[in-house]
Amino acid sequence: MRQPIGVIDSGVGGLTVARELMRQLPKEKFIYLGDTQRCPYGPRPKEQVKRYTWQMVHYLLEKDIKMLIVACNTATAYTLQELQSTLSIPVIGVIEPGARAAIKSSQNKQIGVIGTEGTISSEAYPRTLKAIDHSISVDGLACPPFVPMIENGILSGNEAEKIVAETLQPLKNKNEMDTLILGCTHYPLIKHLVQTEMGPAIQVISSGEETAREASLILAYHGLLEQGNILPTHEFYTTGNMEKFRNIANRWFEAPIQILERVNLDTKQSSAN
Amino acid sequence: MRQPIGVIDSGVGGLTVARELMRQLPKEKFIYLGDTQRCPYGPRPKEQVKRYTWQMVHYLLEKDIKMLIVACNTATAYTLQELQSTLSIPVIGVIEPGARAAIKSSQNKQIGVIGTEGTISSEAYPRTLKAIDHSISVDGLACPPFVPMIENGILSGNEAEKIVAETLQPLKNKNEMDTLILGCTHYPLIKHLVQTEMGPAIQVISSGEETAREASLILAYHGLLEQGNILPTHEFYTTGNMEKFRNIANRWFEAPIQILERVNLDTKQSSAN
Repeated sequence: MRQPIGVIDSGVGGLTVARELMRQLPKEKFIYLGDTQRCPYGPRPKEQVKRYTWQMVHYLLEKDIKMLIVACNTATAYTLQELQSTLSIPVIGVIEPGARAAIKSSQNKQIGVIGTEGTISSEAYPRTLKAIDHSISVDGLACPPFVPMIENGILSGNEAEKIVAETLQPLKNKNEMDTLILGCTHYPLIKHLVQTEMGPAIQVISSGEETAREASLILAYHGLLEQGNILPTHEFYTTGNMEKFRNIANRWFEAPIQILERVNLDTKQSSAN
Repeated sequence: MRQPIGVIDSGVGGLTVARELMRQLPKEKFIYLGDTQRCPYGPRPKEQVKRYTWQMVHYLLEKDIKMLIVACNTATAYTLQELQSTLSIPVIGVIEPGARAAIKSSQNKQIGVIGTEGTISSEAYPRTLKAIDHSISVDGLACPPFVPMIENGILSGNEAEKIVAETLQPLKNKNEMDTLILGCTHYPLIKHLVQTEMGPAIQVISSGEETAREASLILAYHGLLEQGNILPTHEFYTTGNMEKFRNIANRWFEAPIQILERVNLDTKQSSAN
């Protein structure tokens, strides 16, 4: 019996992580749950984010997942440790993989991070980086225009280039960084624009790619890699508008997504308790 | 009490892995053991490689290591699974990290691997790659001139360029690969030459960098990361000639190595058993 891997996110951003998971682990079946109804998590109080995240986790645990990917920076920052110490399955977040990849990549230990206001002000990336190497210098920059731009499908062209250039300006003047972490799951969709703006000398790290890479290691490490060669059919669940979710997913994935259902986590929780 | 991380290799090649481990995990203390007396392992029978590897492992276990890095492709291919299922500490080899990094990097699923005769003929890399994604196509090439060239300190200049160009020629004519794994721990020292020869479109993967990255994840995953900020003093042990070992190590590391001792694993094993 093939056991799926669960992927949770506050909305659609985690789809970039799911896409990389499916690319790097093509034998694995993934179940994605996006809490689009209550998105974004960034501005919400910590306890609320924890409660919402646990609702998603309970929903996926009933689907017998063998591993959980927290594909959301806010949920990772607030719940990862608790999930890891509570659940009996491996749990992976999106912050540490990007941080470790940046440490590997950076030769001069000057690392930049861009993300939402919440992620940058949480200092989650500097804390993770400095826990491994306290001599690393980190420059963070919140980029509020990026998420709405990306969700509106503006991924190239003059307008996108102008927004990216203007938003990244403070970072370009700041230091001699050689590595930049895309600390938001939406940003890989404009990686090419960020790379062009920052120049070829900067290594741009995409959290989705790095999270998938680490998921692959942890699966192998626990002997949980899927052995069969039957192509999986992934499942997608959203708490919000299905059409909006489908439109964005189909724009971001190479093949149209097949199974998509709407779920109500609040009701589910009340009936379960 | 700071617990060290053990690194074993058949000789000096694993020093490139140790160097990356020290760079990416600067708080950790490493103990390196190179079996230079009985190097290379490649041409030896499997059972002998296993016995030699276990002798090294027993030596390091007495030094209370918290993790073991098998920084040798041959020893990884022959002993990794057994070590992982026998030892109570995490064990990491050098083959899977390079393979996973290549899967992350490759967009067209055409991956090349270069290594010693033994590593290439063992098919360890194709097997690991295809276990994760059976649609990946792998071209392997044994490069026998590289190890003696590197151990003789020929790392740049006309002679080195000529040897690299001639040796890699069969690979260049073969397919449209976009990623090349350096499947031998010596090769990172000539990564620049390989990159130049293969061209900028090819992503060259260094097993040392990737092994250190995965060691970092596994330490964090098990809560084993060193918390203190006291700079560690690493220890090096060799079964062979100390001066030769020191010369190569000092050429490869930025700072001269401090503690170096010669050990006799055969005697040790007889007295222990």
